[in-house]
Amino acid sequence: MRTVNGWAAHTPGAALAPWRFQRRELRPTDVALRVTHAGVCFTDLDAVRPGPGHVRPELFPLVPGHEIVGEAVAVGSAVTAFAVGDPVCVGNIVDSCGACEACRGGDQEFCVQFPTLTYAGRDRHDGSMTQGGFSDEYVADQAFVYRRPATLDPAGTAPLMCAGITTWVPLRRWEVGPGQTVGVIGLGGLGHVAVKLAKALGAEVVGFTTSPAKAKDLLDLGADDVVLSGDAEAMAAQRGRFDFILDTVPRPHDLSPYLTALRFDRTLCTLGIVPELRFDPQALLFGRKRLAGAGSGGIAATQEMLDFCAANNVTATVEVLPIAEVNTALDRLAAGDVRYRFVLEVASRR
Amino acid sequence: MRTVNGWAAHTPGAALAPWRFQRRELRPTDVALRVTHAGVCFTDLDAVRPGPGHVRPELFPLVPGHEIVGEAVAVGSAVTAFAVGDPVCVGNIVDSCGACEACRGGDQEFCVQFPTLTYAGRDRHDGSMTQGGFSDEYVADQAFVYRRPATLDPAGTAPLMCAGITTWVPLRRWEVGPGQTVGVIGLGGLGHVAVKLAKALGAEVVGFTTSPAKAKDLLDLGADDVVLSGDAEAMAAQRGRFDFILDTVPRPHDLSPYLTALRFDRTLCTLGIVPELRFDPQALLFGRKRLAGAGSGGIAATQEMLDFCAANNVTATVEVLPIAEVNTALDRLAAGDVRYRFVLEVASRR
Repeated sequence: MRTVNGWAAHTPGAALAPWRFQRRELRPTDVALRVTHAGVCFTDLDAVRPGPGHVRPELFPLVPGHEIVGEAVAVGSAVTAFAVGDPVCVGNIVDSCGACEACRGGDQEFCVQFPTLTYAGRDRHDGSMTQGGFSDEYVADQAFVYRRPATLDPAGTAPLMCAGITTWVPLRRWEVGPGQTVGVIGLGGLGHVAVKLAKALGAEVVGFTTSPAKAKDLLDLGADDVVLSGDAEAMAAQRGRFDFILDTVPRPHDLSPYLTALRFDRTLCTLGIVPELRFDPQALLFGRKRLAGAGSGGIAATQEMLDFCAANNVTATVEVLPIAEVNTALDRLAAGDVRYRFVLEVASRR
Repeated sequence: MRTVNGWAAHTPGAALAPWRFQRRELRPTDVALRVTHAGVCFTDLDAVRPGPGHVRPELFPLVPGHEIVGEAVAVGSAVTAFAVGDPVCVGNIVDSCGACEACRGGDQEFCVQFPTLTYAGRDRHDGSMTQGGFSDEYVADQAFVYRRPATLDPAGTAPLMCAGITTWVPLRRWEVGPGQTVGVIGLGGLGHVAVKLAKALGAEVVGFTTSPAKAKDLLDLGADDVVLSGDAEAMAAQRGRFDFILDTVPRPHDLSPYLTALRFDRTLCTLGIVPELRFDPQALLFGRKRLAGAGSGGIAATQEMLDFCAANNVTATVEVLPIAEVNTALDRLAAGDVRYRFVLEVASRR
């Protein structure tokens, strides 16, 4: 076994504290990576501070972290795609059944047996609990390890592994590109990356935000226009404007005004994991709109996204903290005090 | 002007009473039809008995009726598609702009200028209010008049003009056919026609109903299986079963269990016009499902539907009442006491 130094919540809601634990010895197709950076996502916060009704004590101690950037430090005997020293990264899934309709189609994130999560998941071979990237080393099958473009800032690359791929997949699925007007709702970790990606794809990008203070930020990030979603008159003026709208807001809200803002026969895709969303079915019916969801991405899409970001110099806008300040990052994230993603420096450079 | 005998609500909420009114003289492309049968849809009930906040006194006197069956009795000078004596029908829209993206694509029901409704609509030429088919004659442009298959029972054909086309369009859009399993939620005017159409298209058809009493009816209509939607265990067992689900329920409800019942990458289409629908976004996200709406259909789709029904001997299952009993039909419809559509005998046969 490989001894690893990580930061774990030992019980639900507890502050993260240093924890030394074991990772598996490399299987033939495994890659071990030294984790240099790990992004801090809302999912991490939810995992270590679960809400009422979502507490699962059996998952603890729990090491979060699924936006993982690092360098290969060891490879299994059958690994062909990576060598020691390669810049690599790992995202929020690390295995899947490989046999179902979704896996065969390259959509491993929708594996019918549920993909193995990067942490708090069950390893498909030995049944052990996976532990995440807030630790100096991670071990994963090479199929779920990605070539990291060395030209991109490593800290800014980390959030691409969750916020990036989660927004990239719907932008590609609905063929966002030149000549299209795309709306992005919400300016957080996902939203700010979505604005950059949609812009790099050639679309006209419009940010929706409740916050007048964020309007300038959206323009600075590359948005062509901003709509204050709390302004009913401004919202009504958006009727029929958009070819696609991506909703990144992690709070329950009414989808109807955004459905109305779509053009005929277009789609609103929601990314936020919230208890419930609601809409007026007439806003869906008139103009033959569609509602869809998305989350994470498959193996090929993830590498494609990274390569696109390298070609277009897209990274997340991040605030970097040392891993020892992980609890500060979590507290500030819980308070919404982040622009736009915290990234932790994990293993010290050699 | 052409003098017509109809049944109108003279004020919102009033019982329908005989009313003699004028229809326009035929324009060159108009067809006048003697109305022999008219179906009674929930929309008719809503129109004459509007709920609080939806009362529009300026629409009254109001003659409802948009599932219209009859025979051509006069044609304008430029009419080429119809001759006097032809069996014809008219549905819930009678004109559209003809120039927008939807109209050019044959989806006149989604005209961006809003299609002209069969009643309580504004005629696009003279600005007059349209009046519906609970009257012995109707006048419409030939483009929105359809060839009625003479082999089909006229009374059972009437509901095809709304319930039929409204369910036909989504069944065709999502390519329902042999090898597919299709769910139909609700067993009313729309639901019972949807079961027949989906079956005739070659699919395995499963009815969802809250009512154990309706389970046998669903099987009698041709459904292959029935699921009681109030039985949580039975619902959970449907996970991943359906290629397509059509929701015809005109009441607010939670869409999540039906989204879960869909296979990977499939669609739930809602038809009910209700104030609000709600769902758990995770039920949309996992398995990459989609939500869509539909309502009515375009010119080509309507004729295609009628021809398909003729080829497969599909009509609605109806209870026929004389027009003088229209208020009984409305009362019983309001009470849910109908299997599965009332059709009024309107003009006496010559």
